[in-house]
Amino acid sequence: MKNSIYLDWAASAPINADLPSFIADALLTFQGNPSSIHIEGKTAGIQIDNSRKMCATLLGTKPEQLVFTSGGTESNNIVISSLFRKKSKGHIIISAIEHPSIYEYSTTLKDTGFDISYIKPDLNGFINSNDLIPLLKPNTVFVSIMTVNNETGAIQPLKSLISIIRNFQQTNGRSIHIHTDAVQALGKIPFKPGLLDIDSASFSAHKIGGSKGTGLLYLKKPISVLSPGGGQEFSIRPGTENIAGIMAFTRAMKESLNKLNNNIKHAAYLKSLLITKLLKIDGVEVLFRSKTDDTLQYSSFIVSATVSPVPGEVLVRVLSDECIFISTGSACSSKNRKKQGRVLIASGISEKDAAGSIRISTGCSTTEENIIDFCNILDEKLSELKKYLR
Amino acid sequence: MKNSIYLDWAASAPINADLPSFIADALLTFQGNPSSIHIEGKTAGIQIDNSRKMCATLLGTKPEQLVFTSGGTESNNIVISSLFRKKSKGHIIISAIEHPSIYEYSTTLKDTGFDISYIKPDLNGFINSNDLIPLLKPNTVFVSIMTVNNETGAIQPLKSLISIIRNFQQTNGRSIHIHTDAVQALGKIPFKPGLLDIDSASFSAHKIGGSKGTGLLYLKKPISVLSPGGGQEFSIRPGTENIAGIMAFTRAMKESLNKLNNNIKHAAYLKSLLITKLLKIDGVEVLFRSKTDDTLQYSSFIVSATVSPVPGEVLVRVLSDECIFISTGSACSSKNRKKQGRVLIASGISEKDAAGSIRISTGCSTTEENIIDFCNILDEKLSELKKYLR
Repeated sequence: MKNSIYLDWAASAPINADLPSFIADALLTFQGNPSSIHIEGKTAGIQIDNSRKMCATLLGTKPEQLVFTSGGTESNNIVISSLFRKKSKGHIIISAIEHPSIYEYSTTLKDTGFDISYIKPDLNGFINSNDLIPLLKPNTVFVSIMTVNNETGAIQPLKSLISIIRNFQQTNGRSIHIHTDAVQALGKIPFKPGLLDIDSASFSAHKIGGSKGTGLLYLKKPISVLSPGGGQEFSIRPGTENIAGIMAFTRAMKESLNKLNNNIKHAAYLKSLLITKLLKIDGVEVLFRSKTDDTLQYSSFIVSATVSPVPGEVLVRVLSDECIFISTGSACSSKNRKKQGRVLIASGISEKDAAGSIRISTGCSTTEENIIDFCNILDEKLSELKKYLR
Repeated sequence: MKNSIYLDWAASAPINADLPSFIADALLTFQGNPSSIHIEGKTAGIQIDNSRKMCATLLGTKPEQLVFTSGGTESNNIVISSLFRKKSKGHIIISAIEHPSIYEYSTTLKDTGFDISYIKPDLNGFINSNDLIPLLKPNTVFVSIMTVNNETGAIQPLKSLISIIRNFQQTNGRSIHIHTDAVQALGKIPFKPGLLDIDSASFSAHKIGGSKGTGLLYLKKPISVLSPGGGQEFSIRPGTENIAGIMAFTRAMKESLNKLNNNIKHAAYLKSLLITKLLKIDGVEVLFRSKTDDTLQYSSFIVSATVSPVPGEVLVRVLSDECIFISTGSACSSKNRKKQGRVLIASGISEKDAAGSIRISTGCSTTEENIIDFCNILDEKLSELKKYLR
């Protein structure tokens, strides 16, 4: 990614510079199947155990509460698909701004007899307790609300939402599984799943500098999954483990969490600079920022804006030709026009503004110069594009 | 794995020597999210498209019939879990010798209202048409029979079994999904899924020299899966793709299939040498081999034997201390004593012999010397162990 400005970290962070050779070494060194009982297998298995212990220390959990997966999507899927093991279908609450790996699952749940409620955020992008209370039903079995939204950057008020759910549960008597997709929280805000009264949380390696193909699932207690398979990962996620990916993820997590405060400060500075500069560009409106209310919390790593009436997709492509990489929204929906804009529209953005939306997301190695250069070229390209639209 | 004799290729093959650095390069070069619409994303996406085309050529399928997954287990799970989308539960036939990723799923299927029949192999390890016919029911919707058994090495007579199922289907009028776990077939026997009248087949990278964490699913036609997620892999397997793993798998598949005939010849020679030597060792009985009937086909890469009354597990550990790596059976069951021996017992081996069973599996870089050294040390160690058992 030389000579380019990469501002799409929320889609995928560049891999940490030390990891490609670290992974190559791990692939050479730990070749056995971790389930094998001979030394080659055991040695491989020990790497996974050690990685799990390190992640547990970093996340404030017990090692046995962590399950390595193939990514954030699989972590989410393991939890949701476990609902199919329930004898009686129940009621489920899903935020309207969930990642596709959860949101798109709701169609399957509906088709198979579950009752689904979607909870929309307010105009600032936050799920409100007042909107959650009336949705809870005697047969509610599952609630999924992501920690940090991948498009708006809104940090959801999880603590108060959880407290409402647990209070309802206590009166109602039926336990409710609370899940949070914490993919955009890890390494971006202080987040220790063990300190929240949640049942599960999902994480992804490649959003924090690890390699694609590895994720993590926090489970407060074991759940009955669809497939125990060969029994790997406490029979929660079967299949031969991606040892090198797991080791690299652990290393990336350590790096990321050890530098968390500095990284957040750096990102907050860049975000402030970016917003100041964006506001000066004709035709750019910054979305989801606390203009007046300091209690509203957004990720320091994500900025959402609209360049409407210029289509966001067109701008992303034009900037790409200049080796500047941003996105229109979630990468996971960006190839499907029908599904684009769902999160922003659910958060009160007009269809027109959503069509013109862009997401700029930064990371630990993003520089001030990147932001300044980006804004200059954005200004230039927007002026050109607007001529065509007249 | 220097100074060691690795004879557990069926659990996990050593990674091809060129792949660790190839993977490191790919991790550095293709960093974008393949779903992103900018150049970084597109470039990454193109690698996946090219890999898919190459695999399609190698496997004799259309590119759009191949879905990259996180491994053989996930490939199997995607297909089985799609059964939950069916409005009415039906009847399912699973061979009693399936890998745990399929076999253990049957408990879930039963619990959720499916009717399951298990089909046992004969005493040679083969599923017989005569045993299949009476099991087919008007509401049979799914049959899963693996291509090559991972413990006995038996190459199932898929063609005749498929023909029986399709004939029944034609008379009955209800379509039956035929799935085969081909993890131990890829690179071990000629296997082109497109040439068989099957609906799906599973493959794994790390069994043929690729890296752990990548697999492939052949799907004749798209199926309705539980989770379309972000739409990756034709909405069959959502989640950001493990690009480097996919590229490495493709390279390993090319290497493996280009040398298929030579590799089979080499393995057949080693197997014959191994069996000859094993038969000379006091207390070893070779299981699953065609003593008289040449039409019985077994994988050239797998030898099953029993050292009963010596426990197989003890022998595996003793040999491991000598840096010789074999297994008792499937690595995926080897840590669970209750589940050990299921496949062998289902194949007619006594519990006693199953408890003494070992599996020796070879690969392209196994040498004649490896086999001779292994047999010499096995002989020595068995003599020692038997003294303790007297």
